[in-house]
Amino acid sequence: MVFMNFPVLYLRKGAERRLRAGHLWVYSNEVDTRRSPLTEFEAGVQAELRASNDKPLGTVFVNPHALICGRLISRDPGHGMTPQRLTQRMEAALALRERLFDKPFYRWVFGDSDGLSGLVIDRFDSTVVVQISTAGMEAMKEAVVRAVQRLVHPEAIILKNDGKMRKVEGLDTYVEQAHGAAVSLLEVEENGVRFEVPLEGGQKTGWFYDHRMNRARLQAYAPGKRVLDVFSYVGGWGIQAACAGATQVTCVDSSAGAIDSVHHNARLNGLDNVETIEGDAFEALKALADEKEKFDVVVLDPPALIPRRRDQKAGEEAYARLNQLGLRLLERDGILVSASCSMHLSQEKLVDIIRGSGRKIDRFVQLLEQGHQAPDHPVIPGIPETDYIKSCFVRSLTGFF
Amino acid sequence: MVFMNFPVLYLRKGAERRLRAGHLWVYSNEVDTRRSPLTEFEAGVQAELRASNDKPLGTVFVNPHALICGRLISRDPGHGMTPQRLTQRMEAALALRERLFDKPFYRWVFGDSDGLSGLVIDRFDSTVVVQISTAGMEAMKEAVVRAVQRLVHPEAIILKNDGKMRKVEGLDTYVEQAHGAAVSLLEVEENGVRFEVPLEGGQKTGWFYDHRMNRARLQAYAPGKRVLDVFSYVGGWGIQAACAGATQVTCVDSSAGAIDSVHHNARLNGLDNVETIEGDAFEALKALADEKEKFDVVVLDPPALIPRRRDQKAGEEAYARLNQLGLRLLERDGILVSASCSMHLSQEKLVDIIRGSGRKIDRFVQLLEQGHQAPDHPVIPGIPETDYIKSCFVRSLTGFF
Repeated sequence: MVFMNFPVLYLRKGAERRLRAGHLWVYSNEVDTRRSPLTEFEAGVQAELRASNDKPLGTVFVNPHALICGRLISRDPGHGMTPQRLTQRMEAALALRERLFDKPFYRWVFGDSDGLSGLVIDRFDSTVVVQISTAGMEAMKEAVVRAVQRLVHPEAIILKNDGKMRKVEGLDTYVEQAHGAAVSLLEVEENGVRFEVPLEGGQKTGWFYDHRMNRARLQAYAPGKRVLDVFSYVGGWGIQAACAGATQVTCVDSSAGAIDSVHHNARLNGLDNVETIEGDAFEALKALADEKEKFDVVVLDPPALIPRRRDQKAGEEAYARLNQLGLRLLERDGILVSASCSMHLSQEKLVDIIRGSGRKIDRFVQLLEQGHQAPDHPVIPGIPETDYIKSCFVRSLTGFF
Repeated sequence: MVFMNFPVLYLRKGAERRLRAGHLWVYSNEVDTRRSPLTEFEAGVQAELRASNDKPLGTVFVNPHALICGRLISRDPGHGMTPQRLTQRMEAALALRERLFDKPFYRWVFGDSDGLSGLVIDRFDSTVVVQISTAGMEAMKEAVVRAVQRLVHPEAIILKNDGKMRKVEGLDTYVEQAHGAAVSLLEVEENGVRFEVPLEGGQKTGWFYDHRMNRARLQAYAPGKRVLDVFSYVGGWGIQAACAGATQVTCVDSSAGAIDSVHHNARLNGLDNVETIEGDAFEALKALADEKEKFDVVVLDPPALIPRRRDQKAGEEAYARLNQLGLRLLERDGILVSASCSMHLSQEKLVDIIRGSGRKIDRFVQLLEQGHQAPDHPVIPGIPETDYIKSCFVRSLTGFF
């Protein structure tokens, strides 16, 4: 083993416990700043991590300015992040996706879950979108681009480094074409359905692969049905339902750009039965209820309504209001697909919110399926933060019991 | 509304709360036995249920001898269980299954979850297996058989009334051919794969449809891989993996009859790469480890290792031992499918057991998929007892982090 001349970051007594249990982050209040003052570390450097009793715990990227000041690179104290190790891990991540998906459309790298804290890579066939969110990974930027080129030979690589997390890490935000010709429209294929999404102004990397399996399941419930897709964005759920044989689909979104994309994607798939409502989802649902509209299937896929822990109560109330509105719009025998991407809302709590909503308006509610994030978004069992997507497929019966 | 001359069962103060929240059972210690002595009810009669303040809560089947002495029939105090209502509910249950499944192989009725407490019906195309577990439903036996005949015109109906719950309800146990010619072998098709299962001596109704969706997902991980199916029963997981392209499958089960069925089902599907080990699963896994055997995919689908609440600790330890053994048998980049049918083991706890097992033997563990019971086994959100199947698809990497 080559001796790596890393500075040492010492933890306070007991602070190694969470890491030993499987987590990969060090919080700044866990550092023994007497032995290893954070001020002596530059943002993005690598260090050896040691417990208070000097036992080595591995290597970390350090960022003295961030609340999460250490991100484990390896549990081996001799293993720093090198271009070679980065490439190996990207290769291991790629192997999983290639095994699971027929076509090259997937989240290729999902940060910590693939042993690459601070790095997210989405693949859209020959276009690769990279997001870097930590100072440690920013220092590896060139190596990331080279590894992408070497492993999949894409036509274009885009660095979409404009996420909110970057400010926390003291990084500037930018979008940069790292390789190939400029791309303005991402072409996506998911569950056999084609989409085009504008890259500029699009959300995150432009497409949310995380609900892929749940949208695949929606296809089983759609044939011959009237479907409402609330918070539709570019139509991920609704267009797939229409392609699976829904008779009519209505997409609701507050963004004019998203609504334009819904129409574009409907045309792209030769659909003439997709309508849209531009406006606030809660308002739109109330208006539909006032008009006595009914749907066979209602999909609710809101943005995180509990963005931070302190929003817990208000957020849960918002989910409850939303689910009640959704249930009210269902036919006597209808399907509610209730999704959440709030890390702070447990699957158990979402089910309980649906239970309460059903009781409140006297529906007999059967929970048919419980969905999670797709396997290209692996969960690390010791890191609750990596488990965020939930969906419930619910059958609601009126006058049944 | 016709006045139904039901006796009244009164609850103690506050005992209605759980029912209002969605549950459908009354426990004997919740009954106000001063106002409505349970001894005055015959097993299986219907009654009106009232809260302590006389507010009507609905109708129930009563069994004075059982801990669960009341089972809600309807939240409408005028709605008793009649042959007509029974048929309507069986029809509603059938409509869901016909919508979801291409072929007539499914759990048609799942007790409380379909508004039919005490009744389970499994359909194997033209053979229908009925299980009755409560005195209330036993009183409806003739109506159940007639409804099955009317709704699906099967060639055979078998009453497999030999479950353990019947003793608790004061019912005798028997297996009876209620209609058609005698059936000794059930023919099943699941996820496109055929099985034959002996009815006599088989477990429960003969086949467990509840893991259907999880076995479908296994097919995505099987091609080109060596698969170990532990607690295989008749080969549900293993044979499906082989049909999906596994290069070699080994099924482990302690029952000689189950092992015979594995071989029979392998032949039925034209497979020559399915081996078996007859013996205790824990012993077999240890022996395989001693022989330095490795597999690409290991499936663990044990019987409920926490049968009762008082077995919690020992059961969790057994799951932990089992998952460690399974992980040890994996190749450097392998897939563990860890299932549980213990109602007392939460999804969260199963994930935590896998986390702990992975840490103990230093594997980098990615949770790829979290599976639940199939939609022909609906969960009622207010009845935790209806939510029992879990599965975790885990990728285990050695020397990775």
